[in-house]
Amino acid sequence: MHSVEDSGSKMNIQEFKDFACASIDYIADYCENIRNFPVLPSVAPGYLSRALPKCAPEKGEHWNHIMEDLDRNIIPGLTHWHSPYFHAFFPTGQSYPAIIGELFMAGIGAVATKWDSSPAVVELEVIVMDWLAKILGLPEEFLNCSEGPGGGLIQNAASESTLVGILSASHKKIQQFRIENPLMDEWEIRGKLVAYTSKESNSSVEKAGLIASVKMRLLPTDENGSLRGSVLEEAIRSDKINGLVPFCVVASLGTTGVCSMDNIAELGKICESEKMWLHIDAAYAGTALSCPEYRHLINGIEHVDSFNFNPHKWMLTNGDCSALWFRNTTYVELAFKTKAALSVPQFQPELEHRQIPDVRRFRALKLWFVIRIYGVEGIQQHVRRHIALANYMEELVSGDSRFSVVVSNLGVVCFRLLGDESVTQLILERIAMKKCIYIMPYYYKKQLLFRFVVCSRFSTRADIQKSWDEIVNATNEVLITIANSKDPVSTV
Amino acid sequence: MHSVEDSGSKMNIQEFKDFACASIDYIADYCENIRNFPVLPSVAPGYLSRALPKCAPEKGEHWNHIMEDLDRNIIPGLTHWHSPYFHAFFPTGQSYPAIIGELFMAGIGAVATKWDSSPAVVELEVIVMDWLAKILGLPEEFLNCSEGPGGGLIQNAASESTLVGILSASHKKIQQFRIENPLMDEWEIRGKLVAYTSKESNSSVEKAGLIASVKMRLLPTDENGSLRGSVLEEAIRSDKINGLVPFCVVASLGTTGVCSMDNIAELGKICESEKMWLHIDAAYAGTALSCPEYRHLINGIEHVDSFNFNPHKWMLTNGDCSALWFRNTTYVELAFKTKAALSVPQFQPELEHRQIPDVRRFRALKLWFVIRIYGVEGIQQHVRRHIALANYMEELVSGDSRFSVVVSNLGVVCFRLLGDESVTQLILERIAMKKCIYIMPYYYKKQLLFRFVVCSRFSTRADIQKSWDEIVNATNEVLITIANSKDPVSTV
Repeated sequence: MHSVEDSGSKMNIQEFKDFACASIDYIADYCENIRNFPVLPSVAPGYLSRALPKCAPEKGEHWNHIMEDLDRNIIPGLTHWHSPYFHAFFPTGQSYPAIIGELFMAGIGAVATKWDSSPAVVELEVIVMDWLAKILGLPEEFLNCSEGPGGGLIQNAASESTLVGILSASHKKIQQFRIENPLMDEWEIRGKLVAYTSKESNSSVEKAGLIASVKMRLLPTDENGSLRGSVLEEAIRSDKINGLVPFCVVASLGTTGVCSMDNIAELGKICESEKMWLHIDAAYAGTALSCPEYRHLINGIEHVDSFNFNPHKWMLTNGDCSALWFRNTTYVELAFKTKAALSVPQFQPELEHRQIPDVRRFRALKLWFVIRIYGVEGIQQHVRRHIALANYMEELVSGDSRFSVVVSNLGVVCFRLLGDESVTQLILERIAMKKCIYIMPYYYKKQLLFRFVVCSRFSTRADIQKSWDEIVNATNEVLITIANSKDPVSTV
Repeated sequence: MHSVEDSGSKMNIQEFKDFACASIDYIADYCENIRNFPVLPSVAPGYLSRALPKCAPEKGEHWNHIMEDLDRNIIPGLTHWHSPYFHAFFPTGQSYPAIIGELFMAGIGAVATKWDSSPAVVELEVIVMDWLAKILGLPEEFLNCSEGPGGGLIQNAASESTLVGILSASHKKIQQFRIENPLMDEWEIRGKLVAYTSKESNSSVEKAGLIASVKMRLLPTDENGSLRGSVLEEAIRSDKINGLVPFCVVASLGTTGVCSMDNIAELGKICESEKMWLHIDAAYAGTALSCPEYRHLINGIEHVDSFNFNPHKWMLTNGDCSALWFRNTTYVELAFKTKAALSVPQFQPELEHRQIPDVRRFRALKLWFVIRIYGVEGIQQHVRRHIALANYMEELVSGDSRFSVVVSNLGVVCFRLLGDESVTQLILERIAMKKCIYIMPYYYKKQLLFRFVVCSRFSTRADIQKSWDEIVNATNEVLITIANSKDPVSTV
């Protein structure tokens, strides 16, 4: 009789089941009661190192000690990203099917490098990425099952997808440039490469430029926060005069601030004529493409070389799960495939040569769980529901004459308090102090805005109303304090 | 009364619990019966796309359809990385505490960027990385809690850790070089940078050089597969004559082939005097440092700038979980912190500026579960048990006069069949065809070896015996076939 326990472990299969079942109950309770936690924690920096031992335990502990510590030390230090009162950043993907997907990924523990190291891991990713491309309405050329060299795979994060796009673009440009200028040194060309993005794009785009060691220009946007063709054209013209080599544009569908959309059609035409790579960062907004009424956002997709969105943002899938497609995977392999690897032909597609790590987790599994259990209709319903909640928030803001909605896109509503901006600052501070809702400030076109995002899959109209009430109460309190401080009696 | 269901979902909390409990049972059964699966699958490329629909379902499905598909289509296409008969690559971390750690990470769904976006996520990582550094016996300077600028964090993979190390090194060297040569262009310096590693190092090191756009020399090793100081010195001398700028050495503790160890003390002294960065890739072997009897492997650690090992390899932790420490985090922030980020001071440490992505999952949680439930003793016991099993395999090989052990390090045993190498090839093919065990060939010092690794946490002496029996049987069968084909009667 074989033992199924590893001898180092204090945990046998029955204890695993007990621990797991207790954990499932814990998670279900957490979800059911998530509204009862203040969305932001009240801990000071270093709180946890004051609470935990300085060293690992010599002897193994029973799992119920960990459960106690979760309640005592971990949960109180968490920001509750899935609370209906969390309106910061963007949604972070989570759902019951995805949680169990992660459980299965860990429980089976399958990973893969090349196809033959675990065929199901590679093949399911190839299939699910095609399902996803069809859900979004991406053109045939991006599909793994297409005749051509296009295809998609799962990356770790949008930051990584952007970096992979930029590196592919730079290798393509260097290859092309060296054919035209065979005597030019590779690093001389590298020093001249310049990429473009808008000032409103995510900070990870600038970071990707830094990591890839290329110049990255942050261009101004139009009155809607959109990067337009004319601005790009002017930047290219000026850089070329200075001897630089424009090679890539990273356009945003859904900027981090106000969720504005760059004009892909205009940018795409210029990229085409300038032989530049066009990468789309649709990390959040990409999920909206699952609804036909938002497909117009990718007008110009025929000019796009690489397209990224994160199912781990708005598509109910736990991180990490960042989807990236290429029109032509030849260039990404130029950037990632070593000489040694070139000599070893493998079954196609060689996903490991289209990313930074060599090994992949079975992330396709959780995505497959989510898509099957929600269905396309369920995903569309989720998107439309969030947008309807954002519209409801807009209504609430518009109903208060002290406020004005500045810009609203998909699940993101940005509004301002009319009058003195220092009052807005005080209100935001008061909201942050009370910790009942989490919203962020955003400076946009020289105005300080309240940036409110519908994030939680649990959010209802009642929750949105409650969040708005918090903002109104904080506003009233601040205005009363100001009025009192200006009271002639008290100032005498 | 609030609804706790997101309206897009067909799954409510009770269904979540049912699905989760069924999944726990499934995983427990899978672990208990893992020996019953052939370790390698019998599927042809494209098997899964022939079995699954071409598009996502419009309407959501019930979870039990997915469970059926797991049995029918997924499990048959998996290589069972945790089978006791899996002896390829290296161990892939998994354990009951880590599985539940992943479940919790997904169920709570906490992520973090900066400290204040989720203090517990950042602080637990800082603490657990210190625990880990102490378990391995790394010097004080690498600890987050130390006075100086050192510290550690969790990365995605060793590939990424190596890349982060190389980028940090290049930024440090460029900064230093420009102070000495203020008129020199940044890209002119970049074009001259050269890094070194051994021919035996993991392919991800060469890939990291490609991604970072630096020259990477693959240097020969000594008779033990170790990169030595004299070889490095000669390469540096020759590159400097050619106007290049040596800036980094990536040394391996446990090479991918035979798990050989580079001579850190010798390489470190040279790096010190040449002002070069020394990065250690101890992805697999690092876990052995938890046992004091293997601490001698890091003699010379006082010269090391960055040190990486993967708890998700040998330390029972599910991927992704790659631990990376720096002696001085200033240089990694030089490589990853954008100008925009520089202007926003935050609570320390700013982990998001020491890695590619901006967001981190709560990976520290699973590592904390593993360390607490195993304890330091449990981890040591696991390491010593695997090494004892490798020693047992060595005994078995040595007991058969047809074979000879060529090299054995930690859990890796490499051996050869005496005589004609083409016979080895036939035996390996026969083993691969039978799919009962998974071992890999490795060419080392011009010899074709059987590379056998103790990987599974479930492995026992009986399993090792069974794996060896498979090799012996395949050998006997091949030798009999050859003998028969040479039989004068049959060749007449």
